[in-house]
Amino acid sequence: MGEEQVGQFKVEAQEGQARAATLMTFHGEIKTPVFMPVGTKATVKAMLPEELKELGAQIILGNTYHLHLRPTSELIKELGGLHKFMNWDKPILTDSGGFQVFSLSDLNQISEEGVKFKSHIDGAEEFISPEKSMEIQMNLGSDIIMAFDECLAYPSPQEKIEESMALTLRWLKRCKIAMTRKESLLFGIVQGGLDLDLRRKSMEQITSVDLPGYALGGFSVGEPIHLMHDLVKIVGPEMPKNKPRYLMGVGTPLDLILMIDAGIDMFDCVMPTRVARNGTLFTWQGKISIKQSQYKNDPSPLDPECECYTCTNYSRAYLRHLFVAGEILSSRLNTIHNLHFYIHLMKEARTAILENRWESFKNKCLTRFV
Amino acid sequence: MGEEQVGQFKVEAQEGQARAATLMTFHGEIKTPVFMPVGTKATVKAMLPEELKELGAQIILGNTYHLHLRPTSELIKELGGLHKFMNWDKPILTDSGGFQVFSLSDLNQISEEGVKFKSHIDGAEEFISPEKSMEIQMNLGSDIIMAFDECLAYPSPQEKIEESMALTLRWLKRCKIAMTRKESLLFGIVQGGLDLDLRRKSMEQITSVDLPGYALGGFSVGEPIHLMHDLVKIVGPEMPKNKPRYLMGVGTPLDLILMIDAGIDMFDCVMPTRVARNGTLFTWQGKISIKQSQYKNDPSPLDPECECYTCTNYSRAYLRHLFVAGEILSSRLNTIHNLHFYIHLMKEARTAILENRWESFKNKCLTRFV
Repeated sequence: MGEEQVGQFKVEAQEGQARAATLMTFHGEIKTPVFMPVGTKATVKAMLPEELKELGAQIILGNTYHLHLRPTSELIKELGGLHKFMNWDKPILTDSGGFQVFSLSDLNQISEEGVKFKSHIDGAEEFISPEKSMEIQMNLGSDIIMAFDECLAYPSPQEKIEESMALTLRWLKRCKIAMTRKESLLFGIVQGGLDLDLRRKSMEQITSVDLPGYALGGFSVGEPIHLMHDLVKIVGPEMPKNKPRYLMGVGTPLDLILMIDAGIDMFDCVMPTRVARNGTLFTWQGKISIKQSQYKNDPSPLDPECECYTCTNYSRAYLRHLFVAGEILSSRLNTIHNLHFYIHLMKEARTAILENRWESFKNKCLTRFV
Repeated sequence: MGEEQVGQFKVEAQEGQARAATLMTFHGEIKTPVFMPVGTKATVKAMLPEELKELGAQIILGNTYHLHLRPTSELIKELGGLHKFMNWDKPILTDSGGFQVFSLSDLNQISEEGVKFKSHIDGAEEFISPEKSMEIQMNLGSDIIMAFDECLAYPSPQEKIEESMALTLRWLKRCKIAMTRKESLLFGIVQGGLDLDLRRKSMEQITSVDLPGYALGGFSVGEPIHLMHDLVKIVGPEMPKNKPRYLMGVGTPLDLILMIDAGIDMFDCVMPTRVARNGTLFTWQGKISIKQSQYKNDPSPLDPECECYTCTNYSRAYLRHLFVAGEILSSRLNTIHNLHFYIHLMKEARTAILENRWESFKNKCLTRFV
């Protein structure tokens, strides 16, 4: 990948607001709509890099907060960067650490300069500023670096949201100055809570800083999901058309379809991997909890319409047995299936948009997923 | 595999007492010396069947006791047998359940008829007799079925051992009558504790029953390891020459080399898989505990002399990080390495015997493993 092309973004087709596009990064191109599996601690839980590629994963997400605390970004840099460390040669997006600083750590104390907090691992005092977040993400060698922002709890008073938006904007400007790695792309994050006017104001602020991509943050914080749907249906299409649009931390298969329909290009969520380890599996017949006794002697595949390794080779009875027995293979086979489901759904969505039959594909999904 | 060939055993080379042989089973041939990974509950922990094959695993072991309790052999039979259930099309050996009945269950009560015991899972009362053990193993569709025997604790009084040997012989005869599945091979188990005379007497008793293979049982029950080495050095070579010789539940890489030298052909042990999950790894430089802080920023592979997937693609620093973070991938990568180490060691041993350089290979191993 030539450096001159890094950041190039091309919308190849659009139907309604749904878009099929390509984003160029230093580690290769990403075809959207795309779902990014979450690899919090330098591994997508239970999966090998080769398996992720086989499933069609184009880009994975790493968590700045976790990697900063352990094993530290300095160590990963010393060992050649996150790609080499975890044996993954495709694009990596890292979050800014902001979300975890506010949700996982104790006693966080926010100032103009940054956030002081105590590690959830050992209680050690830590400090992350916009500059520090950029430094960590540059150490990791991320292809897409997220701006450091303040994440508010839901609900928050309007005045607090506006103050926070102003701080986030000042921090974004500091991030842009600090992010000097030319192989990386810096994305800004629109906040503004669930109020349409504030979202629009935040979007205006954030997009006033010229960046290769923009995200919608501050969702998946406990708000009723239909409020998010309704809001993104309006603000999604209003985001810059010539830049990738990333909805952070969302969501279910249904959410993804609805949000593609609102013009979103990129998604990440721990859901498919996390619930897989708890025995919950997404299928075209709806969600299945594999531990249920009805599957005890069920010889059929998890999802007869699915072509993943798990569905091709194993019965529901075996998957239930592995789950009940607490076997590691349970997490593996379930994760393979759920990630296949998400990644394949995005691939089908993209093809539908390219072939101008998004509307009917979307309606099929909406009928099947509700 | 034609049924007429099942059980055929051919010694292809011998140097000293060490042998290279081939055993034919219904699911294909087994080249010895062979290490059999343990797949207790219808899965070799953390591994896919395809990965085991890639490592060169020729046969795996399943545990009758565990599978009988959960999910039950009846269910596995209904679903097409253990091979189909767990997606493994190469040979499977199952133990008789005896060892676990005596070591895992509560309140076992032994009679001429069999053993009454309480399940370690839910305390339910269970009964296994020689006939029941055969029925379970035939339900599973095992290629090699082990006779149901009494396993004594170490140490036991001589009189108790002799009584037990007599019972084990009577049970073996009942096993032979009950084991009617022509695709399966029944192996008898020599007991006799650590007394040479009793071992010889038990061997005479057990080998008086004509069977396609014989095992040495009752080791790995807490005895000093050199007593086992010394005893098997004598009785190993005295076992029938035209039948496979299986030393149950053994052992370390050093044990395997010493016992091949005593004429043993087949081994199984939970050690490589179990200790892998605890971060202990076998290398040509000795055992490594990957959690140690000395590996924190060590960019080198686990074992520079190893060609396994783990050693080819990851650093010690990454393996340590995964272990410390409690990631599933830690168990996976560690298990791949340890199984590769064992399986590759057996392959090298076989080649050395076939090429008449066993003595020097053995001496190399003895220098490196101590």
